[in-house]
Amino acid sequence: MRNSATAELGGRRPSGRRTGPSDTRDAVLAAARRQFAEIGYDRASLRSIAAEARVDQKLVAYFFGSKHALFVTATHLPFDAGAMITHVLGGAPAERGHRLARRLVEMLDNPETGPRLIGLVRAAAAEPEAARLLRDLLGREIWVPAAAAMDIGDSALTVSQVATQLLGLVMTRYVIRLEPLASMSAEAVVDLLAPTLQLLLDAATHGGNDGLS
Amino acid sequence: MRNSATAELGGRRPSGRRTGPSDTRDAVLAAARRQFAEIGYDRASLRSIAAEARVDQKLVAYFFGSKHALFVTATHLPFDAGAMITHVLGGAPAERGHRLARRLVEMLDNPETGPRLIGLVRAAAAEPEAARLLRDLLGREIWVPAAAAMDIGDSALTVSQVATQLLGLVMTRYVIRLEPLASMSAEAVVDLLAPTLQLLLDAATHGGNDGLS
Repeated sequence: MRNSATAELGGRRPSGRRTGPSDTRDAVLAAARRQFAEIGYDRASLRSIAAEARVDQKLVAYFFGSKHALFVTATHLPFDAGAMITHVLGGAPAERGHRLARRLVEMLDNPETGPRLIGLVRAAAAEPEAARLLRDLLGREIWVPAAAAMDIGDSALTVSQVATQLLGLVMTRYVIRLEPLASMSAEAVVDLLAPTLQLLLDAATHGGNDGLS
Repeated sequence: MRNSATAELGGRRPSGRRTGPSDTRDAVLAAARRQFAEIGYDRASLRSIAAEARVDQKLVAYFFGSKHALFVTATHLPFDAGAMITHVLGGAPAERGHRLARRLVEMLDNPETGPRLIGLVRAAAAEPEAARLLRDLLGREIWVPAAAAMDIGDSALTVSQVATQLLGLVMTRYVIRLEPLASMSAEAVVDLLAPTLQLLLDAATHGGNDGLS
């Protein structure tokens, strides 16, 4: 069943699962996301990812360079996190916690975006480069727009606290799979998470979030 | 500087850093805890741990069997988690969040217990066996006494939520090292964490913690 890498790159073929380079690339990225999320960065390899995608390992190296470069591409968020934050935090203040909880849980339960984020968190626990990548993502892509949307002093601290909720949820529900949280419906998890996020966002907005109150 | 394994096992020597089997065992466990916490389970090996402890690798295998068995011993909590939970939750209800926050942060910042827990969380992200171990620890050793101390219906859900806070804090402050949380004093982190824990414990006690409120 293994397709020839050359045939893959050569363009259209009359039949078969994939018909061109972009299909091959998507298949490799899908396999990479699944393996980074399910078995972690250290155990996934260009070889195991190529095997799952039914693509020649050399072709994967040609497309992506290294495992780390593939990881960066595979975990890149497929949406504008900054715009999402601005939208969530810009609406009615009393519902911000619930809106943010809903977006985070939707993102994690979504088969397209969930494995990217869960894979990134798992990798960050194992690998300093991935930890740096996640730190940069939370800083540059989340912190800067959040600061503008919230109009508060110490938005970096608030982002640290929201990140604590997000990373805690990823670890407990998706990695450790602690019950009953692991099997709960998305709706129930949103309802559990919302009051905590509302508390953090309220404290930030009221200026009491200085670590001394 | 490498000591002979046989000399180590042979008992007292007039000089040198370690004088007997229990010192050697302690040195191996200290090196194992540091490596599991700092470089993660997958990258630590019996060889690298033996090298850091300046002990023959064969001796490490003799003492502990496998890397996984060494991991289990190294991350075993050196205190009765159940008794701690009972004590923390049994006192004045309005201060439970602060007391629990203080104990969790003390545990993580403590040079003896911190690396065990942080190593366990990092390993759980990389390795299904470690994830199972952490799940069991949170269940058997934390959930059962917490249920008794809190006298509430769905204590498993409350444990899931407290675990979310603990694992989120470990990832954000100690693994990703997101600022400003990473550099804050223990006291400031306790003050940040306490209101969230109080909210979760209050909801559990008031019976509203059913995921629908």
